[in-house]
Parts: sequence; structure tokens; C-alpha cells
Amino acid sequence: MVANNLYAGVEMGGTKCVCILGSGPDDIRDVERLPTRAYDETLRDIEGIVERWRRQYGKIRALGVASFGPLDLRTQSDTYGYVTSTAKAGWRNSDVARRLQRKFGLPVGFDTDVNGAALAEGRWGAAVGFTDFAYVTVGTGIGVGTVVGGKTVFGMNHTELGHIRIARRAGDRFAGICAFHGDCVEGLASGPAIEARAAMPASKLTADHPVWDCVAHDLGQLLHTMVLTTAPQRIFLGGGVLSAQAHLFARVQDELSRSLNHYIEADELEAGIAQYVVPPGLGTMSGPLGALALAVDADPGNVGRAFTPAMTVSQ
Amino acid sequence: MVANNLYAGVEMGGTKCVCILGSGPDDIRDVERLPTRAYDETLRDIEGIVERWRRQYGKIRALGVASFGPLDLRTQSDTYGYVTSTAKAGWRNSDVARRLQRKFGLPVGFDTDVNGAALAEGRWGAAVGFTDFAYVTVGTGIGVGTVVGGKTVFGMNHTELGHIRIARRAGDRFAGICAFHGDCVEGLASGPAIEARAAMPASKLTADHPVWDCVAHDLGQLLHTMVLTTAPQRIFLGGGVLSAQAHLFARVQDELSRSLNHYIEADELEAGIAQYVVPPGLGTMSGPLGALALAVDADPGNVGRAFTPAMTVSQ
Repeated sequence: MVANNLYAGVEMGGTKCVCILGSGPDDIRDVERLPTRAYDETLRDIEGIVERWRRQYGKIRALGVASFGPLDLRTQSDTYGYVTSTAKAGWRNSDVARRLQRKFGLPVGFDTDVNGAALAEGRWGAAVGFTDFAYVTVGTGIGVGTVVGGKTVFGMNHTELGHIRIARRAGDRFAGICAFHGDCVEGLASGPAIEARAAMPASKLTADHPVWDCVAHDLGQLLHTMVLTTAPQRIFLGGGVLSAQAHLFARVQDELSRSLNHYIEADELEAGIAQYVVPPGLGTMSGPLGALALAVDADPGNVGRAFTPAMTVSQ
Repeated sequence: MVANNLYAGVEMGGTKCVCILGSGPDDIRDVERLPTRAYDETLRDIEGIVERWRRQYGKIRALGVASFGPLDLRTQSDTYGYVTSTAKAGWRNSDVARRLQRKFGLPVGFDTDVNGAALAEGRWGAAVGFTDFAYVTVGTGIGVGTVVGGKTVFGMNHTELGHIRIARRAGDRFAGICAFHGDCVEGLASGPAIEARAAMPASKLTADHPVWDCVAHDLGQLLHTMVLTTAPQRIFLGGGVLSAQAHLFARVQDELSRSLNHYIEADELEAGIAQYVVPPGLGTMSGPLGALALAVDADPGNVGRAFTPAMTVSQ
């Protein structure tokens, strides 16, 4: 890569932000982590890092922000580029993408954290060569980035599969912890939900703890819905809970296969299921590289490449 | 339309097939209905009609088949163009698209009945101008055709939203009638499921029958999942049950809005919901016109037009 192909990405998470400078996984120039504070302080911190990088490294071609949501990604909207109805204190209806665009005068790619991660997997990771796939993260929340025909799905707005309501496991009476929906899949099987179920952090539970029966069932239901709604060619399952509890892969594969009950005739859902539901290829870097992928896609010089973001603010 | 822009479509349903000749809703030359019999007899009947049309009307540019499923739409597959794991007697693993292609030497567009109907709505009906929308039919089964970015969704295979498992209505203990899944949404809220619940055909039930509380809930859950998985700009809700029970629209809108609980901030899901969940524009012709849309899309002369089918058999 030549020096002037520099992009800056920001993965905005609920507790921390990761800023990344480079052009891809093999060309990362700098990474800065900062706590996610109140809205204005956090944006100032991010702006300070980008300003320093411009002084230190020279021209940056575009910015990418992969953010916790929900977001307004409707380009015609007065609040395009905002974090909208989040439960996160002080962040409701906060301008992110347009503020950065005004500040730096650069194209800003803006999408959900999981859509960014999916695009990064498609561009550099385990999804290279696939046109239809999904990236699932199970951590503080549950998020799904869905790519259909090479693009992240965007209609009325971005997708939010973590909040689908699913069939409950027989006998499971846990009320769920989602502030909006109670027992949606995020309310049932995210890290905090698992902790609420077991009265112990998910990372500390042994593989034989009975809570995993419910979690595997609920994630299996999420994947059942994904297979029937967008039919991904492969599903990448990551996030803190899966990283710490690798035994879940086989259990979720099993639940998915059993729930679909041979209705869809595809090797991916039968003998091949261990190759169908797999970890992402970029590991813990899929989030920050997702932001970088959004920046690369936002660069007008890259239009027509394999993966383009749903929406971009250009000058 | 000039005389040589003729296309033939076949809507293959579980009980009847509708064959249509023309170039669009304003240019329908002929329509033939026939009962769906055993596989070979039905295909012979269809072939006879197309042969007669060729003699009578001249050149046909392409065929389109919009079929009950599941179907194999993977072009690399040995069984591309087949009806696969259907419960319908005598139709399991039956070649449809390639048989017609060999017989007539014409391009054959092949997709699910609901994907065809969605494409017809996008080309000629109520979805003109939308790039992301869905067509739902509630009748003998429940089917959903989903268009994302102007194309029907196709990944590992076609989608099958009728078989998602949903959160059950509190107190509803109906086991469901789906042979594969029991209480998937088709097993809970299709015409035969409603009849099994109420011991009376759905069309004969009055609007105040208590079964509609369950049906509205279950269809509301289907739409909740649709909004979060592909975020359609509009949802078209049709089929025999909705045609006969128009009161369901307001109830389903209500259930959807309540279930999402303001998590997605969009006027479509709040004050504008009566314009968001609406009947299809082509009425009872959306099925046959769906087959015709697949034929139009299969014509190589039309490549690059607004709506292109997922898959096409060409010579």
C-alpha cells in the first residue's frame, strides 16, 4: 500500500471506542482505545485522535464509523448519521456521522458495528468469496450484520436481528432483560442475560452449566430465522460469549439443524453444518476493521469494488 | 406492446396452476387454469397449453414458472429447477424448470410463487418505486417474497419465512399443523391452521371470533421479524385469508407496532403504519403476473431492467 491510501475507522461500542488507522489488516498504522464517555466528550476524543493522525501520518482519504445502534441511516432524513433510540445515557439522538464530516471535510462511511464487521469479513476475512452471509456477535448485546448480494441489507432502515422474538425453550421461564422487548433473543441470550440467568458472569460458567441449554436453544432459534429470512451461504458467530465458550458452536449447530428438521435440503444444514456456522476470520479485530472497511467503501475512488456500504456521507 | 413481446407464465400452486400469456397486466392475451394433478400429468398439461399458444399466437420469448416450494434454485446444483422436499404427494424431487427449458428451448425464469408475486408488484403493482419490500400471502400456506436492493433474496437457497418459529401468544396452546415444525407461523396462522383452531373454514368465521386474536398476534410476530431482518420499506399482505377477513389489517398493524415497542424510530411503524402494511396492488392476479414477471426477467433482451430474477435457466 502507498502512503496516501490511509483510512481512519472508529468502532463505537457501548463501553469503549477503538480508533484504527491503516488500509487493511496487513497495514495497520495505529490503534487507539478510549472509554465511551458522554456523547460530546467521546466525539471530542475521537476528533483529537484523527487530528493527531493527520498531523503525524498525512492525508486520510475517508473515515468510517461502525457504531452501536440503533442508527438513522436514511440519507434523506434530517437526523441521518445519528444514534437514535439507544438506551445508553446521554447518547439519545446524537449526531455522529455529519459532525465528523463537517469537522474533517472527508467522506464518512457510517453503519452499524455488526454491518461493518460483516463487510470486513467479506473484504479481508472468512467471508471472502461469499455474496450472502451473516456475522453474529453475542456479547453485551446480540447483533447481526447481514450481507445480501454483496451489500449490507438496508431498507426502511438498518436491520436489528438481536431484537427478534423467538420460540421459547420448553420450560424456560426466564423473563428476559431487554428494556424494549423483555424476551427477544438479546434479552434471553446476550452476556448480561446469561449473567442474569446464572447469577454469575457468562465467562465464568463451566461448559456443563444448565444455562447453556437455554442459550444454545435461543441462538439456534436466531439462526433458524436467519436461514429462512436471508439464507446466508455461511454464518459467522463471534463475540465475547462465543470466544469464551467454544463448546457453544456444536450446540448451536445442533439446535439449528434439529429446529429446521430437514425442511431445507442443503448439505450446509446437515452433514456440513460444522463448516456452516463458524467463527469469524478476523477475530477480535473484526470490529475495528469493520470501521476501516466502511472508510474504504466511503472513498469515492473505490466505487464499484466488491463491498460497498449501505450509506455514505460525501461532501 | 408489439406482437412479438410475448411471454408465458405458469403459477404452480398446490391445488391449481394458472397459465398466462402476455407481456404485463395491460396486455394479457390468454389465461388457462388447470388442476394440479400428479407431477407428470401436470407438466404435460402445461406443455400442451404452451404448445397451443405458440401455434396460435406465434413466438414466445421466455417462460416463467412461479412455483410452490421448496425449490432448488442453486444454478450449480444437479437438481436446479426442481421442486424438492415438498409434502405434496408425487412431487418430491421433480424437475420443472429444466424439463420446460429442454422441451421448448426457451429461457425459463424459475422462482418461488411468492418471490414471483413480489417481483410483479415491483414491476407493475403497488411496489413500483420501492427497492426493498416484501409480499406476504396467507392462504393454504404462509409465504413471503422478499426483495432487497431490487432483487429477490437468494443466498444458500431461496427464503422460507413461513416456517420461522415465533413467540407464542400468552395462553395459546394450539400445537400447530406444520408437518415439519408444528407451530411455525404457517403451522399457526395459515388457512388450514385457522380451520384446525376454529373447527370451521377461515372464510366463514366472523370478525369477532376469538381465533383472530391468535392469528393477528402470530402474523404480527412474522412482521416483527421481517422488519428486523430485512427492514422492508413496505409490506404487502395478501392471500385468501386476508381477502376474506379485511379486519385483520388493523389488528396485524397493531400487533406489529406494539411488539416492536418503539425500538425502531420510524413513522412507518407508528402513525404511518396503516400505509406500511397494505394489500398488494395486483389483487388475485399477483400470482400469475408473478410468473409472467419471471418470464420477462428471464428474457436476455431485458437484462439490466429494474427487477431481475434470482436465477434463470438459459440455453
